[in-house]
Amino acid sequence: MRLKTPSPGEFELIERLVKNLRLTRRTILGPGDDCAILAASKAPQLFTIDSMLEDVHFRLEWASPEKLGAKSLAVNLSDIAAMGGRPTACVINLAVREGLDLRFFDRLYTGIRKIAERYNTDVVGGNITRADRLGITVALLGDASRTVTRRDLARVGDDIFVTGTVGDSAAGLAILSGKLKVRGAVREYLIERHLNPTPRIEAGLALAKIRPTPAAIDISDGLLQDLGHIQERSQVSAEIDATLIPVSAGFRAAMRDDLSLALGGGEDYELLFCARPGHAEESLTRALGVPVHRIGRIIKGHQSLVRGAGGMMTPALRGWDQLRASR
Amino acid sequence: MRLKTPSPGEFELIERLVKNLRLTRRTILGPGDDCAILAASKAPQLFTIDSMLEDVHFRLEWASPEKLGAKSLAVNLSDIAAMGGRPTACVINLAVREGLDLRFFDRLYTGIRKIAERYNTDVVGGNITRADRLGITVALLGDASRTVTRRDLARVGDDIFVTGTVGDSAAGLAILSGKLKVRGAVREYLIERHLNPTPRIEAGLALAKIRPTPAAIDISDGLLQDLGHIQERSQVSAEIDATLIPVSAGFRAAMRDDLSLALGGGEDYELLFCARPGHAEESLTRALGVPVHRIGRIIKGHQSLVRGAGGMMTPALRGWDQLRASR
Repeated sequence: MRLKTPSPGEFELIERLVKNLRLTRRTILGPGDDCAILAASKAPQLFTIDSMLEDVHFRLEWASPEKLGAKSLAVNLSDIAAMGGRPTACVINLAVREGLDLRFFDRLYTGIRKIAERYNTDVVGGNITRADRLGITVALLGDASRTVTRRDLARVGDDIFVTGTVGDSAAGLAILSGKLKVRGAVREYLIERHLNPTPRIEAGLALAKIRPTPAAIDISDGLLQDLGHIQERSQVSAEIDATLIPVSAGFRAAMRDDLSLALGGGEDYELLFCARPGHAEESLTRALGVPVHRIGRIIKGHQSLVRGAGGMMTPALRGWDQLRASR
Repeated sequence: MRLKTPSPGEFELIERLVKNLRLTRRTILGPGDDCAILAASKAPQLFTIDSMLEDVHFRLEWASPEKLGAKSLAVNLSDIAAMGGRPTACVINLAVREGLDLRFFDRLYTGIRKIAERYNTDVVGGNITRADRLGITVALLGDASRTVTRRDLARVGDDIFVTGTVGDSAAGLAILSGKLKVRGAVREYLIERHLNPTPRIEAGLALAKIRPTPAAIDISDGLLQDLGHIQERSQVSAEIDATLIPVSAGFRAAMRDDLSLALGGGEDYELLFCARPGHAEESLTRALGVPVHRIGRIIKGHQSLVRGAGGMMTPALRGWDQLRASR
């Protein structure tokens, strides 16, 4: 909680931050001291950190400050969701550059507070520093469920499922970057999916109740790459049927049959998980509260493949040891 | 734990990070999944975040990568020390720019690992992102002691104490910045004090055992400014005798009678604390394991003062309500 040679304006920023914070009974002491104090938790703690930097992860002209604030917490919430946990408290490190006024930060914190309220997360403190670019780094704690949906739990024969639809966020980013020309409602939908992702907290909590416990990951790097993380940690390979990949009507309107962004685009923040055979899409959809689609299965050996992609250029799907060897 | 469009080189960075991490039995799952998993703690949790940015908090030509890594964790450990707690686990967000090779990050993590070992702290995970400037953001958890040395515990009549010596770090920074010309061993000493601060973990743990519990803060912004934080949170004022401020022989050699950097310079990471009258410097020094000096006392009213500063320019010491009003 150190402020490097603070200016009066930066002090005011801290005041704003303090006013906007969300605290519940689990927080014994919020901001204003060297550390926040949280009540001891009965569950094991999930702990993660993630960062959003101007001109790396976002441009200010793309999104309102509220959406930027909300997404900076949402990407962390998604990590808790992937482990099947319940978020509890976060601290925020804000790197502030010149040219952004108090109104901007007020709106940024409004966005953070709203998503914190939605997912019952306390914002217990933070730190502000000067920088050349705006940066928002969030460290988030969560309570683990009785079992944790780790990446290393995939077993040969498991079905592979994904929540929601994939590719929308990457298509939205392509539109924002000027690489994809789309108009009207489809444009707005895809951009919104990029700027305003939904962390699948409730779905993750439901997943953690399934026995045996599924392997899970959130899709932040892209479906095939994140599946690769599960493969590597579980030492298995995968067989995907591209025709089963769930994409939205908006994605289909913009991309037609090209699934490259659905397979390789990142920042969907949907959950990818692997469960023993026998789970129907319908029952999983009911249990998780979000549409669930089966896209393939876990296989043995060192050779992974994507079926049904036709002549389409697909990002490589690698077996776990090839992935390791390629580094 | 998201990597934005990672390059093979960045993957290798993560590999290095993983290898260099320090884990103990309190960590159920270290890096490699969406979150780390920590065992549930019996004590309330202290939670803090702090950041070191290139060209804001440091320049690469000033320090070895090892020292930079160690300091990035030390400044967080100091926040735990100020609350009288015991550090347990941290996550690290690394913003990486071009032009820094793997050898650099290997040395950076070596420095982090060494100080983590010294203070029994697990480095349980992290995130790597691209940026224009190197940035190291650490979020740290600690176990609170039975009582916490909060900033709001100062009472009228308390003696004000400080550990170690103050001003060395600011003098070292002035030397590095070319604003202060000093040679030889004194130069080396002051620079080292800036680059390699000692978090007062053991002293903080001893402080938390004193009854009634002292108010405490770490000196990161500067003695008078940090005392101001205690004043504001405790709604008291302070009377400081500048002739009692402990400075090192090196500081005296470089600055002679000018105490402005001892009163107003930051990054000492010593502890400033307020205890009921009757504690002798000698017994506190024995209990805390570091030299302790009395520098003044807490008074009532809204008027704070620094005695014995002569005609010297001293940074303003403000009463708590003036501080508030001045924002």
